[in-house]
Amino acid sequence: MTKVILKYKKGLRAEMGHPWIFAGEIDSIDGSFENGDIIEVYNYKNKFIGKGYINTNSQITVRIMTRNKDEEINEEFFRRRIISAWEYRKKVIETTSCRVIFGEADFLPALIVDKYSDYLVVQTLSLGIERWKDTIVKILKEVFNPKGIYERNDVPVRELEGLQQTKGFLSEPFETTVVSEENGVKFYVDLENGQKTGYFLDQKENRAALKDIVTGADVLDCFCHTGSFSLHAGYYGAKSVLGIDISQHAVEFARRNAALNGLENVCKFEAHNAFDVLHPWAKEGKKFDVVILDPPAFTKSKGTVESALRGYKEINLRGMKLLKPGGFLVTASCSHHMTPDLFNQVIMEAAIDAKKTIRQVEYRTQSKDHPILWNSGETLYLKFLILQIV
Amino acid sequence: MTKVILKYKKGLRAEMGHPWIFAGEIDSIDGSFENGDIIEVYNYKNKFIGKGYINTNSQITVRIMTRNKDEEINEEFFRRRIISAWEYRKKVIETTSCRVIFGEADFLPALIVDKYSDYLVVQTLSLGIERWKDTIVKILKEVFNPKGIYERNDVPVRELEGLQQTKGFLSEPFETTVVSEENGVKFYVDLENGQKTGYFLDQKENRAALKDIVTGADVLDCFCHTGSFSLHAGYYGAKSVLGIDISQHAVEFARRNAALNGLENVCKFEAHNAFDVLHPWAKEGKKFDVVILDPPAFTKSKGTVESALRGYKEINLRGMKLLKPGGFLVTASCSHHMTPDLFNQVIMEAAIDAKKTIRQVEYRTQSKDHPILWNSGETLYLKFLILQIV
Repeated sequence: MTKVILKYKKGLRAEMGHPWIFAGEIDSIDGSFENGDIIEVYNYKNKFIGKGYINTNSQITVRIMTRNKDEEINEEFFRRRIISAWEYRKKVIETTSCRVIFGEADFLPALIVDKYSDYLVVQTLSLGIERWKDTIVKILKEVFNPKGIYERNDVPVRELEGLQQTKGFLSEPFETTVVSEENGVKFYVDLENGQKTGYFLDQKENRAALKDIVTGADVLDCFCHTGSFSLHAGYYGAKSVLGIDISQHAVEFARRNAALNGLENVCKFEAHNAFDVLHPWAKEGKKFDVVILDPPAFTKSKGTVESALRGYKEINLRGMKLLKPGGFLVTASCSHHMTPDLFNQVIMEAAIDAKKTIRQVEYRTQSKDHPILWNSGETLYLKFLILQIV
Repeated sequence: MTKVILKYKKGLRAEMGHPWIFAGEIDSIDGSFENGDIIEVYNYKNKFIGKGYINTNSQITVRIMTRNKDEEINEEFFRRRIISAWEYRKKVIETTSCRVIFGEADFLPALIVDKYSDYLVVQTLSLGIERWKDTIVKILKEVFNPKGIYERNDVPVRELEGLQQTKGFLSEPFETTVVSEENGVKFYVDLENGQKTGYFLDQKENRAALKDIVTGADVLDCFCHTGSFSLHAGYYGAKSVLGIDISQHAVEFARRNAALNGLENVCKFEAHNAFDVLHPWAKEGKKFDVVILDPPAFTKSKGTVESALRGYKEINLRGMKLLKPGGFLVTASCSHHMTPDLFNQVIMEAAIDAKKTIRQVEYRTQSKDHPILWNSGETLYLKFLILQIV
């Protein structure tokens, strides 16, 4: 098999378990290959590190799939890995809707599979995994017997791999707006045009964590998107819920979701930019028992962390000012570049400016179906806090 | 009222919400007082910071109780604070057994109140709060109507305040071994002679987090103390549980707890020092599906962090080696000086030595009845991780 030989003392992270080999770490390639082929990786001392797929068009030139030299990468390999990932979910989480495969963290780099009731959505985000798409789909049909499978490869990151963006059916066509459920709450998922694979599954357990604090409460849900936190608040007995989102489309979708759960009298949705309305609402003296802040990633790169910090501080400060004394701030950041320490710091600064004292009720990360691979820091990205503001 | 004036630019932490004023931060005291009295604190610019009790015999000379100059510290003050703390618990946690008052984090510095079914245990750990003990007990009787209240002031920290160690009844005498319950698991609590107030309530939600991973599993519970994690594992359907603890007394207590839950055939307990047996057991090839490590604080001061790190690394390394592939390591540290980052680092080092890959399933801290006051970093101390070891 073709060998990728690393430079002197390079690839140490990979030796300690990280699945990625960068172009700059490679000294030479011994043997012929086409991009997408399985190759072996050795360090400068000729010590075997792992086996994975190569793509010289990508800065991430190799993604390691196994550390076992004798393990062949074939259909059986994918079957083992997919079944192992599914067994893990069945053990740790309710699986009506869940992430079945979380790429690197399931030792299947660049592969995402999400499950919404009887439907699966697949993303193959690199050339090496794209090559195995038919095999993967075959195994998914075997294991899950789904009513349908949809491909959501309409993501720019594919272009870094020399792949085109595409989406469509990987099974017989079906109606792509489906109904799924989490924590007892029903929701529509638009598999074809919804964000990501149609829904943000990573907050499933965090939405459930609202349960104790929203009973009888007046709740404000900022950046509500299609209403997932709002609906949970309503379902758990909130007195009133106001969800706001800048997108009129999202707000209308959220209203449909409220109706689906019979919560249209409790959960109201309005199209507003949170950055425009929170300040005047605080000045007017509006007060809530619970304020939820689940914004989109303000930063997707290290370079924009500074302006993201200002954004996070601004909304958290405004959120605190909209709370009754002893009310709860539910605040999240899904940006990997916003480390847990940075996120805590910016919320502390907001509290000092707002002259408030913070009692932390709970700190959470992404749901258990998005496990965090320690040897690959990139897989921790979601921070979620429930704070009492005194 | 007597005024404590701080030195030039001192007490900044206190200005940002921390309740403590240290002896070295004080410039002068304007007025007469006895230790234990309520005084006011001002910064060097004569800005009011807060009101609290003073004890010049303690390095923590003032503990602030309120930031509101007009709020009087009297019986009504304590009633408001105690009721507010209780309302919070009733909102966020099942309250059969729970911490009712968590000192600084409930704005009642140095006061601890734990509830075990119909009984309360009280600790007044400073002179200032000791003064109000009768008032506090009166209010606790009013609010909780408990069958009994016990005082566990047999703690060395009292001597730093010039107080004596003591314990005994604060109500009519009663049988001090009581039965309580958490997450459906029953346990005996020895209010008179058990560690702390008789039990470690801070892991209540973490014990519940075992639920999904122990079903059908062979479980090893190291440092099992009176068996709380072991019993939960048994209750949640483990195939077998072996709890070990260095203390023969703890092991016998754990056996009684197992019998109380009808789990004596599932949960076995043996007196061993984990540091002695884990290594040979790993060499013998013993394997478990779940290994639980909940050691006592290896470090109680900054000076001993280094040796504590070695201790944590050693047991986590041994724990990983005793796991079947894909098994779960449940690992905790209750030492404040072991920061979350340090704790993660030491476990990562253990994984590298053991040549294992870590998938984080869940990260948790102390239970919600031990809220974390951000303005007072001292109140975050418990780190709890569920990790899959691959």
